[in-house]
Amino acid sequence: MARRLRILLEPIGFVRTNAEGLKARPQDLVSELVLSEKYANGLKGVDEYSHVFVIYWLHKVRKFERRNLLTRPYHDPRSVGVFGTRHPNRPNPIGLTVVELLEHKSNVLKVRGLDAFDGTPVLDIKPYNHRDVLKKIRVPDRSLRSQN
Amino acid sequence: MARRLRILLEPIGFVRTNAEGLKARPQDLVSELVLSEKYANGLKGVDEYSHVFVIYWLHKVRKFERRNLLTRPYHDPRSVGVFGTRHPNRPNPIGLTVVELLEHKSNVLKVRGLDAFDGTPVLDIKPYNHRDVLKKIRVPDRSLRSQN
Repeated sequence: MARRLRILLEPIGFVRTNAEGLKARPQDLVSELVLSEKYANGLKGVDEYSHVFVIYWLHKVRKFERRNLLTRPYHDPRSVGVFGTRHPNRPNPIGLTVVELLEHKSNVLKVRGLDAFDGTPVLDIKPYNHRDVLKKIRVPDRSLRSQN
Repeated sequence: MARRLRILLEPIGFVRTNAEGLKARPQDLVSELVLSEKYANGLKGVDEYSHVFVIYWLHKVRKFERRNLLTRPYHDPRSVGVFGTRHPNRPNPIGLTVVELLEHKSNVLKVRGLDAFDGTPVLDIKPYNHRDVLKKIRVPDRSLRSQN
């Protein structure tokens, strides 16, 4: 691949949470997305949605050094490529989670289900639509087991 | 917000498609995600999933200049904030689409449903899991109408 390109991003805000470390049940965690004040207006009407995607920067992941890009999922003896997992250590450590929108006040969204550390940079927020709901999907057994 | 941070990304690959311009039915479009050869190994096992999220860089969006961060959705007289829409013109122009995985060969994934131009930089690929399927969601009327 000959084309080279570098992309520069600035966070729109940061995650605020009291939770320390990773939790067994991230789906219960309540945190806040605190946007820069200059972006507060961009949240107008977002609370008409029950859920949003949060795209964030996994800032605690150390520089990507996995030479072979393989990882070993829980409960699975075989190794799989990082793009076949949601593992945080990946070439561009971008996090993606669907969260429940609990409250919107000015530049702050209170959300449930975000498994991100306090201070995590937020890159984007997008509404979760009916088009994002897939009714017939196929996933490997390892994925089913890791849900529980 | 006092903290400043700049995040540097490099594409893992690019979109290859014959489609020109935006299509009325992007869900039918077939395109290829051509990863850099050095990342080919990261795709091992991804085809155990029927669908993946593609996170990409909206490289044709001109530099963000919307002062008030408001936009006017189709079929809606009211303006809403960019974070309450999937409009491409946003502070960090990151695209997010769930696509159907049709084929995996070496460093190339053939996918259906990606509404992205030829040459679009791909930032990440993540499997779509049961956890991403929300059964009870609320969306505004404007979103329902734009699905059709």
